[in-house]
Amino acid sequence: MSAQNCIFCKIAVGKLAASILYEDERLMAIMDAFPATEGHVLIIPKKHAENLHDLPEETAAAILPLAQKIARQLDAALNPAGLNILQNNGKAAGQVVFHYHLHLIPRYEGDSVSIKCKPYREVTAEELGELAGMIRKK
Amino acid sequence: MSAQNCIFCKIAVGKLAASILYEDERLMAIMDAFPATEGHVLIIPKKHAENLHDLPEETAAAILPLAQKIARQLDAALNPAGLNILQNNGKAAGQVVFHYHLHLIPRYEGDSVSIKCKPYREVTAEELGELAGMIRKK
Repeated sequence: MSAQNCIFCKIAVGKLAASILYEDERLMAIMDAFPATEGHVLIIPKKHAENLHDLPEETAAAILPLAQKIARQLDAALNPAGLNILQNNGKAAGQVVFHYHLHLIPRYEGDSVSIKCKPYREVTAEELGELAGMIRKK
Repeated sequence: MSAQNCIFCKIAVGKLAASILYEDERLMAIMDAFPATEGHVLIIPKKHAENLHDLPEETAAAILPLAQKIARQLDAALNPAGLNILQNNGKAAGQVVFHYHLHLIPRYEGDSVSIKCKPYREVTAEELGELAGMIRKK
């Protein structure tokens, strides 16, 4: 299933060029054309899925084992100081292309990537326990 | 295998309390005690693994299907505007606890999370193709 005018669907069927690191029947790993750092890779499903929620479970299960393989290759090729795995769901989370893509972003001292996830407030164990109970019920 | 003084290993064996959303033989999902937003969840392997590289492949394969399940529960319980999946490998990538943990960070309009991954420079298709070739060889 391919969504019209979706750039990752076009890449998946070979209608749009990309620098391909890996592909199989379900997944592709490509170089991000607008890299945040050197070696920025995207893992995408070939079949259109907008986000994490829409991925078939077998596809979801294949993604992190592939990320491990690519991460080892990135380490061997580029020797980064670290690696962020990032995947954005929804515009409010920074998603720009609405076809699921997992970012592998190698990190280097002094690079320009900035990720800030400070605690939004202090929470008590009781509050967290109540929240967990509410979420588990769903 | 448990690493001494690792807080997630202590949570995995019940020596340290946490608000548990889910557990099976391999994985746990717990509420982050220092949440970046309401509903911030961590998925951790019970067996100590420092980062993505160290995870057994079967454990890696189980993580995103569990993230899908938790994401659906978060949507139903909290109706966030989006969701970031984030996992940091190495101090340079912002890793603070050196036991693998996948963040699920629900996003809300006006929250204080900030993720900036702008292109670090313009790259040509030729450059990306060469880089992909170099990485594929590893």
